[in-house]
Amino acid sequence: MKRRIKPSPENRARLNEISGFIISRIEHQAIARGLSLKAMLVGSAARGTWLAGDHDLDIFLGVTEDTPLEAALEIARLVAPEHEEKYAEHPYVHARVDGFEVDLVPCYLVEDASQLKSAVDRTPFHTKYIVCRITGLEDEVLLLKQFMKGIGVYGSELKVGGFSGYLVELLVLSYGSFSGVLQAATRWKPGQLIDLERHAKKAHDEPLVVVDPVDPERNVAAALTMDKMFQFVVAARAFLAKPSLDFFFPTPPKALSDEELLEQITIRGSSLILVEFQSPPVVEDVLFPQLRKAEESVKALWERNGFRVLRSEVGRYSDRAMLLFELEVWELSLASRRIGPPVWEAEHLSRFLAAHPQPLSGPYIAEGRAVVELPRKYARAEDLLANELVNLSLGKHLSLAIRDGHNIYVGPELLRIEDEAFRLFMACYFRAGGARSDQDHWKHLQ
Amino acid sequence: MKRRIKPSPENRARLNEISGFIISRIEHQAIARGLSLKAMLVGSAARGTWLAGDHDLDIFLGVTEDTPLEAALEIARLVAPEHEEKYAEHPYVHARVDGFEVDLVPCYLVEDASQLKSAVDRTPFHTKYIVCRITGLEDEVLLLKQFMKGIGVYGSELKVGGFSGYLVELLVLSYGSFSGVLQAATRWKPGQLIDLERHAKKAHDEPLVVVDPVDPERNVAAALTMDKMFQFVVAARAFLAKPSLDFFFPTPPKALSDEELLEQITIRGSSLILVEFQSPPVVEDVLFPQLRKAEESVKALWERNGFRVLRSEVGRYSDRAMLLFELEVWELSLASRRIGPPVWEAEHLSRFLAAHPQPLSGPYIAEGRAVVELPRKYARAEDLLANELVNLSLGKHLSLAIRDGHNIYVGPELLRIEDEAFRLFMACYFRAGGARSDQDHWKHLQ
Repeated sequence: MKRRIKPSPENRARLNEISGFIISRIEHQAIARGLSLKAMLVGSAARGTWLAGDHDLDIFLGVTEDTPLEAALEIARLVAPEHEEKYAEHPYVHARVDGFEVDLVPCYLVEDASQLKSAVDRTPFHTKYIVCRITGLEDEVLLLKQFMKGIGVYGSELKVGGFSGYLVELLVLSYGSFSGVLQAATRWKPGQLIDLERHAKKAHDEPLVVVDPVDPERNVAAALTMDKMFQFVVAARAFLAKPSLDFFFPTPPKALSDEELLEQITIRGSSLILVEFQSPPVVEDVLFPQLRKAEESVKALWERNGFRVLRSEVGRYSDRAMLLFELEVWELSLASRRIGPPVWEAEHLSRFLAAHPQPLSGPYIAEGRAVVELPRKYARAEDLLANELVNLSLGKHLSLAIRDGHNIYVGPELLRIEDEAFRLFMACYFRAGGARSDQDHWKHLQ
Repeated sequence: MKRRIKPSPENRARLNEISGFIISRIEHQAIARGLSLKAMLVGSAARGTWLAGDHDLDIFLGVTEDTPLEAALEIARLVAPEHEEKYAEHPYVHARVDGFEVDLVPCYLVEDASQLKSAVDRTPFHTKYIVCRITGLEDEVLLLKQFMKGIGVYGSELKVGGFSGYLVELLVLSYGSFSGVLQAATRWKPGQLIDLERHAKKAHDEPLVVVDPVDPERNVAAALTMDKMFQFVVAARAFLAKPSLDFFFPTPPKALSDEELLEQITIRGSSLILVEFQSPPVVEDVLFPQLRKAEESVKALWERNGFRVLRSEVGRYSDRAMLLFELEVWELSLASRRIGPPVWEAEHLSRFLAAHPQPLSGPYIAEGRAVVELPRKYARAEDLLANELVNLSLGKHLSLAIRDGHNIYVGPELLRIEDEAFRLFMACYFRAGGARSDQDHWKHLQ
């Protein structure tokens, strides 16, 4: 077990070698330019809590507050000639070095965490706080991280909405061990508060509140969704009831064959409607909120018009982005009721009648109001979507991408998409447990 | 016009002759038995406010309070040898005499209307009240009655829920004329109060409250539904805008041909579902409330299970009773969501999971609750109805009749019913204006 989650001494040596090399090159460049700059290894690599198989190296380039971050960024560009520039709150450099994914992130060196100029400036404080407390608990952190990975709740990026590495470390510090965290989690309810330094300064309304030891106003678990929090709670309870390696290393789902996809469509007897289009060139933390906003807009469009959505999901495969909807009600009568004003409001009534001179049925009175029955413009969910999608309020990038072109697939038409990642996405959708499902474990809770 | 609504002198003479003859036979019989009994012509015939074409004669057999009503009933039976016995609050005799429909109704002669032993005892007081006030206004009453007949709101029986003859007379007394009533009605709102004797003793929550001049606690308009009240209001407004004989004598709707029925089914694009069965042997005032109760039970069954009803209607044709439903949503996905307890309620969660060991999808978490997706038992509205109809709470007589046998027709299967009255019912349903529609008149209100 430990062998599968703990980096080997060789790996550790290589990581140290590479990070040492990069840091020395950065500092060399800084000295050459007379720039006061401090290069720091941060993140799990710095804390000894990185998982075997993880190859992320975060190196921060700290400058004093009177130095422009651009100066540090230039050095980062030089140090990693083959790189791409990315953008979070500020630009940074990403490069692959000898099999490692290296982020070179300019930041300000501030006196204390209450004087941040940017969110990344906080990271060195986190590293400092963890490094001097986590010694001896590194393996517990690794166990918890791998457990969370296995059940699909690890990662604070918006696509996942799960637990960040720092949050995992704080949980281990709070409860003393992997199993201590699991046992505590079985008693969690929405609003659970963890405040290691007992210095909370602000109320939060997220389901889990872990007060940042280096910033009393910040909730480290702010990005954790209610659902991911309780996926963890359920899995913790299931693991304690019947521990198993499957929690850490679940069998990955298999992509659906044509037959399997068709069988699912048939036994569900629903209408599956997929919208897919060229994924816009933005990072997932920008893309996924827009996908979810579009998902909500489409659902609201349907519900407003009398259709009903059973479930929906968003995702990506190869260079495509997609919105998947499953409808419980996808066809309505052509005739629909339009309810007018109370008939004793003579002027309103006149306007209502003038607006509907040729109804299918009526006008008649129901509960004191005038009612007419009119033909519906769209009696099928896919027709409404096809005609109204581009008029919806969608995120900026999505709006452009969808207007540039999109496809709508209904029911068995989904079989035309043969992409492996899409078929995997569908397999996960039908199991309904996220990318890696924890649902096999629910049975231990019966 | 007046010729069409006012009985001819010959008719009037015949009515007087017949009623005189019956009354004298009744009194003769009473004397022969030494019974103190007073026979009275009541209702519109007694007040000179009966419509041409109407052939209803109401004769009451009043006895003192110490006499059993049975004694009067026996005399009624003798006087009309070919009769049938009917039952309202008490039994009475119905007979056809020389083209007239004669009701012979035993009642008690009480000192004043506050000492009634039964509802029918009030009728002689109504006749007395109207007779000595209506002189000179009879034609106004006839106009209003025929107007209400034409627009389908005349008759206080439960099938109609409209205006009674007595109510029409009181309205004319209140507002002085036919057109006075119409003008007043255009200003009516729910809760309108009319209290001729200014002696109201009780609050009522019906939409129109007309305090009975002979009983300060009674609302004469208690049986009038909100919808019939405002059908009248709308028609009054339309008539005043553009008077026409059509209000009094509308063109009756025509029974639908096969082609017309099929065309309506097609352009409405809905699912029409008819339940029909042998009409139970009860009067319409018993039957219709039970039909409406059954209608509501079926609608509630469907709504509870995710289907949606656009409109519905109840009725009779030949010896059949029927419930007609038009569905806006008649098919659902097989997959359905079952929402369980919040996942932090460990015991509830265990029971929920144990109850659903093999879901189609899930369990998963949504908004903190466990959710599974299960196959629905009935994905089509007609299947749910066919299987659950006999388990619904239906009225006593209806329950028996439906259990004895019923048919369900869906969509084009309705064409198999060739009965003229049924095709007329469907014509009215599609126009959506009741038995005689007032809907042509709405156009004058635009």
